[in-house]
Amino acid sequence: MANDNSPTLETSDNIVLDVVNKESPQTSEDSSVPFLQKLIAEVVGTYFLIFAGCASIIVNKNHDNAVTLPGIAIVWGLALVVLIYSLGHISGAHFNPAVTIAFASTRSFPLLQVPAYITAQVLGATIASGTLKLIFSGTHDQFSGTLPSGSNLQTFVFEFIITFYLMFIICGVATDSRAIGELAGIAIGSTLLLNVIISGPITGASMNPVRSLGPAFMHSEYRGIWIYLISPVLGAVAGAWVYNLVRYTNKPLREIVKSASFLKEAKRGEAK
Amino acid sequence: MANDNSPTLETSDNIVLDVVNKESPQTSEDSSVPFLQKLIAEVVGTYFLIFAGCASIIVNKNHDNAVTLPGIAIVWGLALVVLIYSLGHISGAHFNPAVTIAFASTRSFPLLQVPAYITAQVLGATIASGTLKLIFSGTHDQFSGTLPSGSNLQTFVFEFIITFYLMFIICGVATDSRAIGELAGIAIGSTLLLNVIISGPITGASMNPVRSLGPAFMHSEYRGIWIYLISPVLGAVAGAWVYNLVRYTNKPLREIVKSASFLKEAKRGEAK
Amino acid sequence: MANDNSPTLETSDNIVLDVVNKESPQTSEDSSVPFLQKLIAEVVGTYFLIFAGCASIIVNKNHDNAVTLPGIAIVWGLALVVLIYSLGHISGAHFNPAVTIAFASTRSFPLLQVPAYITAQVLGATIASGTLKLIFSGTHDQFSGTLPSGSNLQTFVFEFIITFYLMFIICGVATDSRAIGELAGIAIGSTLLLNVIISGPITGASMNPVRSLGPAFMHSEYRGIWIYLISPVLGAVAGAWVYNLVRYTNKPLREIVKSASFLKEAKRGEAK
Amino acid sequence: MANDNSPTLETSDNIVLDVVNKESPQTSEDSSVPFLQKLIAEVVGTYFLIFAGCASIIVNKNHDNAVTLPGIAIVWGLALVVLIYSLGHISGAHFNPAVTIAFASTRSFPLLQVPAYITAQVLGATIASGTLKLIFSGTHDQFSGTLPSGSNLQTFVFEFIITFYLMFIICGVATDSRAIGELAGIAIGSTLLLNVIISGPITGASMNPVRSLGPAFMHSEYRGIWIYLISPVLGAVAGAWVYNLVRYTNKPLREIVKSASFLKEAKRGEAK
Repeated sequence: MANDNSPTLETSDNIVLDVVNKESPQTSEDSSVPFLQKLIAEVVGTYFLIFAGCASIIVNKNHDNAVTLPGIAIVWGLALVVLIYSLGHISGAHFNPAVTIAFASTRSFPLLQVPAYITAQVLGATIASGTLKLIFSGTHDQFSGTLPSGSNLQTFVFEFIITFYLMFIICGVATDSRAIGELAGIAIGSTLLLNVIISGPITGASMNPVRSLGPAFMHSEYRGIWIYLISPVLGAVAGAWVYNLVRYTNKPLREIVKSASFLKEAKRGEAK
Repeated sequence: MANDNSPTLETSDNIVLDVVNKESPQTSEDSSVPFLQKLIAEVVGTYFLIFAGCASIIVNKNHDNAVTLPGIAIVWGLALVVLIYSLGHISGAHFNPAVTIAFASTRSFPLLQVPAYITAQVLGATIASGTLKLIFSGTHDQFSGTLPSGSNLQTFVFEFIITFYLMFIICGVATDSRAIGELAGIAIGSTLLLNVIISGPITGASMNPVRSLGPAFMHSEYRGIWIYLISPVLGAVAGAWVYNLVRYTNKPLREIVKSASFLKEAKRGEAK
Repeated sequence: MANDNSPTLETSDNIVLDVVNKESPQTSEDSSVPFLQKLIAEVVGTYFLIFAGCASIIVNKNHDNAVTLPGIAIVWGLALVVLIYSLGHISGAHFNPAVTIAFASTRSFPLLQVPAYITAQVLGATIASGTLKLIFSGTHDQFSGTLPSGSNLQTFVFEFIITFYLMFIICGVATDSRAIGELAGIAIGSTLLLNVIISGPITGASMNPVRSLGPAFMHSEYRGIWIYLISPVLGAVAGAWVYNLVRYTNKPLREIVKSASFLKEAKRGEAK
Repeated sequence: MANDNSPTLETSDNIVLDVVNKESPQTSEDSSVPFLQKLIAEVVGTYFLIFAGCASIIVNKNHDNAVTLPGIAIVWGLALVVLIYSLGHISGAHFNPAVTIAFASTRSFPLLQVPAYITAQVLGATIASGTLKLIFSGTHDQFSGTLPSGSNLQTFVFEFIITFYLMFIICGVATDSRAIGELAGIAIGSTLLLNVIISGPITGASMNPVRSLGPAFMHSEYRGIWIYLISPVLGAVAGAWVYNLVRYTNKPLREIVKSASFLKEAKRGEAK
């Protein structure tokens, strides 16, 4: 965005990382943002996502199911929506190691930055869980983490499917140049929302290793944690790769890249 | 979109198939997408729509009405919204034989492609129902299909009206060049959402033959299935045709087409 | 939109009637739409609004409060949203005599067309209520109209305030050239949604004379009907006039009109 | 917006006050709007926000929890959304002394106008609470203000965090030139919505001194009122300043300002 002289530079409005351009992987967030700022954005964003989502679960337990399952899902979904719109242009708004790894697996995110991003996400989730432990003490200190309600296999499969779905939608709305980028945040948050409704009572609705890790640290409750560390990552990677199946045309790669650039040029000319 | 040399080619941002241009019926999705990719998109999209929607019904039955009727409706509505935004530009995001047939009836979708689209939709819905049967076994294996709660006539009429309504809105927001195309996905998903709320306890809220067929296959439960195969299709076709009543001006067809193209040109010039 | 040669013609994207231009009152919907089509759009739109909203009330009564009050409000709100996006460009999407009269009172809608619009709205609401009476027979034939739950004065004041609020928002988002027109439908539907939540248990949440009249005809239940005929109209007219208070600058009228046109020109040039 | 001759004037679409340009603090709302009009807009906007939100609480208490906690949160959130879209271009749509003070603390709002804005907000909230007292009399006259349900410290910390979060999102979506301005209203209202869900049963969900003051005046109930006067203001100021941490790049200030203007120019050329 800042280097308009270089015509090969990505200048789209996409919120999340661009996975189209294989030759020169670039991020859609402003590349002039210093890396430290991106990490701060990931810490703060993950903090608020986990704080709000887990708070809704704790309040629901403490106040006689007043929030209700759809209410909890609305909190998770909207928290992601608003964070994508306020931080997406800075860090890409991952807040989730599964998403970061999936983008890296399609070479759309620099492999070298993965450890730092994941560290920031773990940090944000842990501080959020710690804050909640401080605020809700004594009998109000409810566990807001994820535990399988049925068999481990059921949880593993369900988490795989819903994270696959989440990553598939992320790729569809945020990285494909033909889709509508402005509503990407709403679409991604809506996917999280509906996934929480259908998976909440079954798996605890993780889709995100750090969402499970944070509360687990605070309550030293690690039963089934391996499922939530592995299954979402595999699901997200699969979702990103399957979306490529749908997207790739029969044209050679070079042409795709060219036509994508052409479309952007055309869009600019066509106004919108 | 890719053939900008040919000035007669549809280049609009419409998400669903365009029914305006009667002389050269074209799709608004990128016509450079290979047909196989479109079919894959229909399979995957129908899969996720049916998987999420039916999962919400099963979870609601297994967990003491925790999802609630509005929660089920939110899942169906948002699932359609996010799939329209992520796959609409590839296959047109039908996921529903009633929609495909209605578009074909107004000559906006190639009649020859209808059987392949419907096959893809039946496939997606059946695999989704099968996945749910595998995940929820034993006493948790709830029927998530549709059954009339009252008389067959009541169900037939209600399904007709709500599918009419759904198709009418689809035509209004996605195919009329004067309407706002970008929010089409939200409007169509919202229509599904509200239709599920008002029809769920009466008819099971189908509006889609494959949404009823998939679970019926898995549980060999075919009572009243003919209603859900016929009524939505008739409703959708009627909705598409009645919208034409509202849209058609008193100008001759040739002028409509010309003025529509003119408007698009103007919009480009005016920058949306 | 179709007459781009005439520079005085309104060509904005506004969904509802424009009340800015006092000298030559014009509608933002395509003025090339024949009047009969506009009336059909008002009949069909009012039909679906009343059908969906009242169906949600009947289903809620018949199925042990399964829809819940927020669910009913969501149905009313979304029904209005999707109808604005699919019919707003044709008829202006009033569906409500209070809105039509309020626009006419600020000279933004031709006074001569008011009777025809109101007739269309009464027709749509009555057919919708009749459809519901046919579908839900016997003990399921619930009254979906509006009745004061408290005193007549309380109902009158509450209906006045919420319709004032609704019309104030309509003027703010859809008729002021500085506001964002594209999201007008969502904002107006959201206002209806929240108004239904706060007024439903108190007044029945009318804000619309025909919404009360339709069910009243079917059940010959006219208690307090005069409140719902008068109060929303007064509230809407007051809302439209008070918004003008906020909008008008200290510039002379001629300058306002000119600068508004200038802005539109600028917007076109600026692309968006 | 009206002075297009002066190239240094802010002409962005931002809804809330711009905090980027430190050298010449300007508002994104039309600077040609007379100050009195802005104050009227703040009175009317605060009135409707408090009226709708508090009405939902009173109706919920009087009608056996029919609104539910998510329903109350939806009313607060949507009320803010629609008021931002209808009044944001006039007054900046603060409706909250904490927001006004936070903007002033980052020099994005003229310090001299703060007292008048706060007076308008107190006035709007008080009239709204008075209206509700008149409408709901006798046993229906429920207290709709905020009271700590736990310790004062818990309430103070929780209010601080959620107001911090609200202001952080406001800065992210509405004042940063790289973010998407059009959806700012939806994002800000969504943040209020989710904050009400997680804090409602704990603190009463204030985030706004006048939201607590209005009902307190009417019921002479001032227990813990100091928390709601101080904590949201501190939280909002902290949120605005921390967002600056994430936003500032390592470029000198002059360059940031220049590149921001450049981007806007580019956007116009690219047609959004």
